[in-house]
Amino acid sequence: MDDHVYKKLELVGSSKQSIEDAVQNAVARASKTIRNMRWFEVSETRGHIVDNQIDHWQVTVKIGFTLDQESDRA
Amino acid sequence: MDDHVYKKLELVGSSKQSIEDAVQNAVARASKTIRNMRWFEVSETRGHIVDNQIDHWQVTVKIGFTLDQESDRA
Amino acid sequence: MDDHVYKKLELVGSSKQSIEDAVQNAVARASKTIRNMRWFEVSETRGHIVDNQIDHWQVTVKIGFTLDQESDRA
Amino acid sequence: MDDHVYKKLELVGSSKQSIEDAVQNAVARASKTIRNMRWFEVSETRGHIVDNQIDHWQVTVKIGFTLDQESDRA
Amino acid sequence: MDDHVYKKLELVGSSKQSIEDAVQNAVARASKTIRNMRWFEVSETRGHIVDNQIDHWQVTVKIGFTLDQESDRA
Amino acid sequence: MDDHVYKKLELVGSSKQSIEDAVQNAVARASKTIRNMRWFEVSETRGHIVDNQIDHWQVTVKIGFTLDQESDRA
Amino acid sequence: MDDHVYKKLELVGSSKQSIEDAVQNAVARASKTIRNMRWFEVSETRGHIVDNQIDHWQVTVKIGFTLDQESDRA
Amino acid sequence: MDDHVYKKLELVGSSKQSIEDAVQNAVARASKTIRNMRWFEVSETRGHIVDNQIDHWQVTVKIGFTLDQESDRA
Amino acid sequence: MDDHVYKKLELVGSSKQSIEDAVQNAVARASKTIRNMRWFEVSETRGHIVDNQIDHWQVTVKIGFTLDQESDRA
Amino acid sequence: MDDHVYKKLELVGSSKQSIEDAVQNAVARASKTIRNMRWFEVSETRGHIVDNQIDHWQVTVKIGFTLDQESDRA
Amino acid sequence: MDDHVYKKLELVGSSKQSIEDAVQNAVARASKTIRNMRWFEVSETRGHIVDNQIDHWQVTVKIGFTLDQESDRA
Amino acid sequence: MDDHVYKKLELVGSSKQSIEDAVQNAVARASKTIRNMRWFEVSETRGHIVDNQIDHWQVTVKIGFTLDQESDRA
Repeated sequence: MDDHVYKKLELVGSSKQSIEDAVQNAVARASKTIRNMRWFEVSETRGHIVDNQIDHWQVTVKIGFTLDQESDRA
Repeated sequence: MDDHVYKKLELVGSSKQSIEDAVQNAVARASKTIRNMRWFEVSETRGHIVDNQIDHWQVTVKIGFTLDQESDRA
Repeated sequence: MDDHVYKKLELVGSSKQSIEDAVQNAVARASKTIRNMRWFEVSETRGHIVDNQIDHWQVTVKIGFTLDQESDRA
Repeated sequence: MDDHVYKKLELVGSSKQSIEDAVQNAVARASKTIRNMRWFEVSETRGHIVDNQIDHWQVTVKIGFTLDQESDRA
Repeated sequence: MDDHVYKKLELVGSSKQSIEDAVQNAVARASKTIRNMRWFEVSETRGHIVDNQIDHWQVTVKIGFTLDQESDRA
Repeated sequence: MDDHVYKKLELVGSSKQSIEDAVQNAVARASKTIRNMRWFEVSETRGHIVDNQIDHWQVTVKIGFTLDQESDRA
Repeated sequence: MDDHVYKKLELVGSSKQSIEDAVQNAVARASKTIRNMRWFEVSETRGHIVDNQIDHWQVTVKIGFTLDQESDRA
Repeated sequence: MDDHVYKKLELVGSSKQSIEDAVQNAVARASKTIRNMRWFEVSETRGHIVDNQIDHWQVTVKIGFTLDQESDRA
Repeated sequence: MDDHVYKKLELVGSSKQSIEDAVQNAVARASKTIRNMRWFEVSETRGHIVDNQIDHWQVTVKIGFTLDQESDRA
Repeated sequence: MDDHVYKKLELVGSSKQSIEDAVQNAVARASKTIRNMRWFEVSETRGHIVDNQIDHWQVTVKIGFTLDQESDRA
Repeated sequence: MDDHVYKKLELVGSSKQSIEDAVQNAVARASKTIRNMRWFEVSETRGHIVDNQIDHWQVTVKIGFTLDQESDRA
Repeated sequence: MDDHVYKKLELVGSSKQSIEDAVQNAVARASKTIRNMRWFEVSETRGHIVDNQIDHWQVTVKIGFTLDQESDRA
C-alpha cells in the first residue's frame, strides 16, 4: 500500500437524523461516480434551524480514495 | 435575504444521550428568548466522565438568527 | 482608556456590493441598539451564488464596544 | 448539572497591573448584569505601549454562565 | 433542501481590480463546466507586487454546488 | 478542587455504531489502567470506508484525570 | 498571468524514501490527467510504522494548476 | 528563480476607503526603503468605528521581497 | 544534545494565585515521577468563577523531558 | 481492526541529518518500551543553528499504537 | 491616525519573574532602536525548567510601531 | 541565558534538492547580515512545478537570534 496516491474530495452531506447519517449520505452519493473510497475526515458540523428545531444537519467531510487506474482523473 | 443582518450567539448544550441531543437542548433553550433562528455551527465537543462512563456531553454551538425588527437588540 | 471593559458582539452583514459594504451594514444595524462601538474584526468572508453570479456577500465581524455605564448589559 | 445550557460572553478586560487583573476586571464588570458565572477562557492577550513601557494589558476572555431561569435572555 | 449532497471546489481567482472581482472571475470560470453553484467561502487573500504597486489580487475560494443528477461526478 | 493537577491522555476510540460509541470505547479502555477520569475533549473525527459504506468511526479524544496520589505517574 | 483562474487538487503521495519523494509521486500521478500544474503546498505529513521502523511516508499536498482552455473541467 | 531567498515583512496599512487601498498604502510605504517586493499575503482585516460608521480599515499584510544583493539586510 | 529524544506530557495545573503559579504547580507535581524536565509550553489558560470572582486558574502545559535511560518509558 | 483503541504519544526526535532521520530516531527510541506502533503524524519541525549552520533538526511527532492487551497502560 | 502604516516586529522576551516581566523586557530592549511603539500581541508562552523548577519564562510578542518618518526602515 | 531578548526573522529559502537544503540556504543567506542565530521554526512548505516535476522547494522559516549588543537593531 506504500506506493499509492490518494485523492481527497470535499463534500457536504445532509440528514434530518444525525451527524453519522449525514456523513453516510455523502459517502453514498460519492459512490455513484467514485471507486475505491478508503477513509473520511469530518471537518465541519453545522445545520439549519426551522421553527426552533434542528431541521437538518450539514456535515463537511473529506473523502480519500485510491487513484488506481491510469485513467482515473486526479 | 441579501440585506439581512444576523447575530451569532455562543451557547453550550448538555445531554446524557448524544451530541445531537445536546445541540437540540441549546436550540430549545435559546428559543425561549430568541426569534428567527436560522442555523448553528458546532465549535467544540467535550463531556464529563463519572465512574468510568460518559456522564453527559457538552457541545458548544454558535447559533445565527436574523435581526429583523428595529427593536431587536444586536 | 486603560480601565475600560469592552464587549465583543458577533454579527454577519450582507451586501450585494462589496465586503466593505457588508461590514458597514452590520455596523449600521448594531448602532440601533448599541452605543460606543470602537472597532471591528473580520473573521469570515463568504457569499451566495445565483445564476452563476455572486448574488451577495456575507461577512462575519466581531464588533467591540465600551461597557461604560452601570446599566450596560454585559 | 447535566441538563444545563450555558451562554458564553466575549469581553476584553484592561489593567495596568497584570494579565490576571485584566481578567478579574472583566469578570467584575460582567457581574453587574450577569448571574451564575461559572468559568472563563482566555483567548487573546495584548496591550498598549506608551513611552517605551507597557501601559496596560488587554485580555480577551470568554465567560460561561448558566441560563437558569426562564426569563434569562439567551 | 435537507437531503442534498454538495461538493466543494477550491479555485484561485485573479483580478487587477479588487478582491470582489477576483472572486467573481473564479465563479465565472467555474460556471463553464459546473452547474448549480450555491455559495463560496474565501479562504486566502494574497497578490503580486510589480514596480512597488499591487499588480493583481489572488483570492482562494471554495465553491459549493449541488450534486443533483445521477451523472454529476462527485 | 483548586489545587489539583490533571493529566491529559490522547486516545483514539473506534466503533461501527456512532461517534458517541467510539468515545465511550476509548473511555472504557482507559478505565482499565486509569483512575479518576473527569472529562474528555473530542479533537478529531474520521473513519474508514469499505464497500461504499462507513465501516467504522475513529474518534480522537483527550481524556483528563486527576493525579491524586503520590505514586500516580505523571 | 493576472487573469488566470487556478484550481487546487488535494492529493496524498506515498514513499518509502522521503517526504520529497512522496510529494514527487503525487505530482507524477497527477500529471497523467492534469495539464499545467504550477505549484504545490504541503498540508500534512504522516506515515506508517511497521516492525518499529518507518515503513512509508504519506504527505498531503494541494496542487495548483491553470484552467486554461474552455473545456478544462473546474 | 529557484535559488532566491526572500524575506517577509509584516505591516499594517490603513485607509478610509477600502481593504484594497489599505494594502496599497502599506506597499507604497514599504517601497520607500525596500526594493524588489514580489508578493503580499493578507493575514488580518479589522478597523475602527467612529460615530456608528467605519472610520478606517486596518489590514495586516506580510510582504515578500528578494534578498538580492550581498548588502541587503536579512 | 543533538541525538536526544524528548517526550511531551500534557498536564493542567491549578492555582488560586496566578497563571505562573498554576504552571509551577504542574511542574512540581510532574517532578514526583518524571526526571530531566527541560521546557514547558502553555497551550490553554482558563479558570473557574465563584461568587463573581476568579476562584482559581487552570493552565494547560506541555512539559518536555529527556528520555535518557534505556528503561525510561516512552 | 474496527474495535481497537489506540494511544497517541508525543515525542521530539533529533538528527543532524534530516527531518526523516529525526522522526526515525523518535520511533526507534519509542520501540524500546512501546509495542504495536502503527502510525505517526508530524506536528512541528524546527532545529538549532550553530555557527551559521543547521546543527540539528528537532521534529515533533505523535505516534499511535494499539492498546492490545489488558495490561497495556492507557 | 487613519493613514498610518505600522510595522510589526516579533521578539522573544525572557524573565525569571513572570510573563508580564518577560514582555516588558522585550519592549525595553526594542526601545533602544525603535521609536513610536504602540501595542503588542502575545503569541506564545513557554519556558525552561531547571531542577524541577521553572527557571525562566520565554514569551513571544509581536510589537507594533508607527513608520512615521520617511527614513524609517520598513 | 535567562535574560536574553531574541528577535525572529521570517525568511523563505529555495532549493532544487530538498526541504532541508532550502532551510540551510535561508540560514546561509541570513548569516551575511545577522549574528548569533540560535534556532529556526519551519512554518510553511511549498514549491513550484515545471513540466510535471517539482522544480524547486520553497520553505518558510522563522529564525531566532540573540539581540546581544546595544547597537543590534530590534
